[in-house]
Amino acid sequence: MLSRTAFQSKTISTDLVLPSETNPLNNLFGGELLARMDRAASISARRHSRRIVVTASVNHVAFNRAVPLGSVVMIEAKVSRAFSSSMEVYMDVWIEDRESGDRVKANEAIYTFVAVDETGRPVKVPELVPETELEIQRFDAALRRKQLSLVLAGKMKPADATELKALFE
Amino acid sequence: MLSRTAFQSKTISTDLVLPSETNPLNNLFGGELLARMDRAASISARRHSRRIVVTASVNHVAFNRAVPLGSVVMIEAKVSRAFSSSMEVYMDVWIEDRESGDRVKANEAIYTFVAVDETGRPVKVPELVPETELEIQRFDAALRRKQLSLVLAGKMKPADATELKALFE
Amino acid sequence: MLSRTAFQSKTISTDLVLPSETNPLNNLFGGELLARMDRAASISARRHSRRIVVTASVNHVAFNRAVPLGSVVMIEAKVSRAFSSSMEVYMDVWIEDRESGDRVKANEAIYTFVAVDETGRPVKVPELVPETELEIQRFDAALRRKQLSLVLAGKMKPADATELKALFE
Amino acid sequence: MLSRTAFQSKTISTDLVLPSETNPLNNLFGGELLARMDRAASISARRHSRRIVVTASVNHVAFNRAVPLGSVVMIEAKVSRAFSSSMEVYMDVWIEDRESGDRVKANEAIYTFVAVDETGRPVKVPELVPETELEIQRFDAALRRKQLSLVLAGKMKPADATELKALFE
Amino acid sequence: MLSRTAFQSKTISTDLVLPSETNPLNNLFGGELLARMDRAASISARRHSRRIVVTASVNHVAFNRAVPLGSVVMIEAKVSRAFSSSMEVYMDVWIEDRESGDRVKANEAIYTFVAVDETGRPVKVPELVPETELEIQRFDAALRRKQLSLVLAGKMKPADATELKALFE
Amino acid sequence: MLSRTAFQSKTISTDLVLPSETNPLNNLFGGELLARMDRAASISARRHSRRIVVTASVNHVAFNRAVPLGSVVMIEAKVSRAFSSSMEVYMDVWIEDRESGDRVKANEAIYTFVAVDETGRPVKVPELVPETELEIQRFDAALRRKQLSLVLAGKMKPADATELKALFE
Repeated sequence: MLSRTAFQSKTISTDLVLPSETNPLNNLFGGELLARMDRAASISARRHSRRIVVTASVNHVAFNRAVPLGSVVMIEAKVSRAFSSSMEVYMDVWIEDRESGDRVKANEAIYTFVAVDETGRPVKVPELVPETELEIQRFDAALRRKQLSLVLAGKMKPADATELKALFE
Repeated sequence: MLSRTAFQSKTISTDLVLPSETNPLNNLFGGELLARMDRAASISARRHSRRIVVTASVNHVAFNRAVPLGSVVMIEAKVSRAFSSSMEVYMDVWIEDRESGDRVKANEAIYTFVAVDETGRPVKVPELVPETELEIQRFDAALRRKQLSLVLAGKMKPADATELKALFE
Repeated sequence: MLSRTAFQSKTISTDLVLPSETNPLNNLFGGELLARMDRAASISARRHSRRIVVTASVNHVAFNRAVPLGSVVMIEAKVSRAFSSSMEVYMDVWIEDRESGDRVKANEAIYTFVAVDETGRPVKVPELVPETELEIQRFDAALRRKQLSLVLAGKMKPADATELKALFE
Repeated sequence: MLSRTAFQSKTISTDLVLPSETNPLNNLFGGELLARMDRAASISARRHSRRIVVTASVNHVAFNRAVPLGSVVMIEAKVSRAFSSSMEVYMDVWIEDRESGDRVKANEAIYTFVAVDETGRPVKVPELVPETELEIQRFDAALRRKQLSLVLAGKMKPADATELKALFE
Repeated sequence: MLSRTAFQSKTISTDLVLPSETNPLNNLFGGELLARMDRAASISARRHSRRIVVTASVNHVAFNRAVPLGSVVMIEAKVSRAFSSSMEVYMDVWIEDRESGDRVKANEAIYTFVAVDETGRPVKVPELVPETELEIQRFDAALRRKQLSLVLAGKMKPADATELKALFE
Repeated sequence: MLSRTAFQSKTISTDLVLPSETNPLNNLFGGELLARMDRAASISARRHSRRIVVTASVNHVAFNRAVPLGSVVMIEAKVSRAFSSSMEVYMDVWIEDRESGDRVKANEAIYTFVAVDETGRPVKVPELVPETELEIQRFDAALRRKQLSLVLAGKMKPADATELKALFE
């Protein structure tokens, strides 16, 4: 099975923050951003696998910066690592200031998707080949995240999570 | 400042899965469930703090079970622990079978909210008092999750995350 | 066919009032509340009958109290009486003040649903057993409302609506 | 204060039934139709009063006929009677068959609105002048419905509801 | 195949401008109006053809007048000319002032639809018979617009567009 | 006032076609695509002008190819020419096949926006500098389209539309 680069799965979603999507402080609702990121990330996973994909999990997402009404929000999603039938998708979310045109990072997020056939059964996906320095760094960290996820779910013993354990030593 | 029980923040959201919210396998979109959970959890945090609340982060959420079109989905949210101005909200999501009336657990999820004043500045929140065995267990684990979150964000040294570190020894 | 208690059909829907759902006075649109009540009530009727249910009628609903933007609205629905294949669902709608945590009754509403099979043909439903004083009171009144409905539709002669007629004597 | 005819408040809303608005039998959700009727009726009340209007109540609405996916639904709303600051709006809802072009009546519905100023305080509205036979018939019945509504709300003694009482004699 | 008058395809859509549909100047989004016009026009084309219809093209639409939040917007659509399997639909869009009740023209728009069978293949449609002076004028201009459309798409030589060419002489 | 390149206004919007956005043939509604294109194009015009922008007109848009349910749709928008306070935005719309990953052109579209200040008054915008061959070709054609638009609106005599008139000679 062939492999694909992170670049080949790159997906850009650019949209406005409308009044119906804001909280009492006039900032984008967290839940709305979670849903938009799910759509962008699922397209990225689909571009990598060319399969139907379903959301398997959401990693820790921190909303560091409020996204005000009227902002342009740009989500850039790329597959960061492929495992047997699952893909980790890494997203960078940017807010764009209308007057200066400057972009500031609003937050990062990591979702995991599983590729399935028409009956919902998992299928194998191509390997992911990271190219840039940042892609390689995220590719490596993806393994630690997978171990953490398995440990938290009680499916791996902490002692066996070699890469993760090293963090605490 | 007074304290409140987990029970006082309990929030139930019951809703249907409609055709417009499903993926090609006729199951609820992950992103749609993330958004619904954000709404339920934010009401729970608001009931605890009686303040405007904003989503601060989403912990690892695993979608273990697909939610088919036409299901009734019930989200039960309760604050699991309050820190200075933030609250961790723990959710149990249930799917209900129409014919048997049985409920099965679809997934659990943990979101964190910050209480703010009208200008968006963080404000103190009451302490959370867990009562049932499960509430106490989630209250204790909340501290480890907070440490993990700080470690992953580079705001705490792994060596200082005492409760978390114990997991790997 | 077994019977079920009103409690077994109890359905709670808790949600926020968002900017996109408000009228020029910044209160929740009547039509939006009607739609939300329909969803909550249909889940309640479904829990009682374990069948597909369709809205058959809406009884007189009075909107006594405006529901302001940013409110938490809680709808509690329970089946109040079951007839052959139809069920009357009684709802209490509460608004919750953020700062005090107080709940005030916004309005009550009564919808009727019919249980149907996959082809849309009406099917029998279990009897409803009221338990609390309020449930019994609503169970009794449901018969008068059914007579009123039949009279207004020209399907029953006023003189035959014994319970209803007694009101005017 | 001038008076206006029923015709002057006539409001037509024509729309499609889309997949996202249907129940498991592929018919329009009752709740969705209730919301659409609220919008059409509120425009009619606004045309009569030229004021901000808010939904005060919904009279008995019977859904006699299912509205299938893909139908064209036409709502025709006209004010049927004006009281001091409230207006009863009568609606006829039609479904249109695509192939034959025939229209069949799906249901009728009656909503009541109150005209208010910018602070939400009720204001007087013009009298309604019915012209056609049907408009006159609905104008007369509106008084009985108002009495019934007051009786059911406990604001009028059944014995005083002269027009209504006559029905049962 | 029988013919139908423009009047027989007349479709009226009356709706409000809600907060979620407005831009930073509190006026209706252009894109939202484009979508509403598409729905009204498609019903008009369907009434003429009694077939499934799909949008084929949108002619030059000018938004001459902003539509403020809270307005009532009325779209009146009529088929202006039928070709073999396509129909040009002409729309007049009106804004209604709440206090005076006056209507002002917001803009006009022209969409073209194709009638198709269940497999998406184009089918013949009845001829359109214009009756009023305005309908006849739009019927005539429709031919020039079709030529312009063919010229711009490179499917007709400018020299062959007799009616259109006359404009520039 | 500085000028900007077409590339600087480039905006990419990638999204899925969901069940709620499709017509009876299971293809994306024309009106939904018109609304999405308006959002993407408005962000492009805003990036060029760094101002609030409002839709001024939509040029002839042809829907040459149906967009099936489940497709990924990619809209690429760039400003093609700036006039005094208006900007023409040219869009290419692509559909992506899931299995092959191939992209086919679904259609092109041209919208015009006006930059305004907070009171809605038009303001000057930077000049647009086309760089690639295609950008230059679209820049040139934009002038003819503007003349055509003025002629059709009766604001320019056909004889004065020099570039346009040349087409017919």
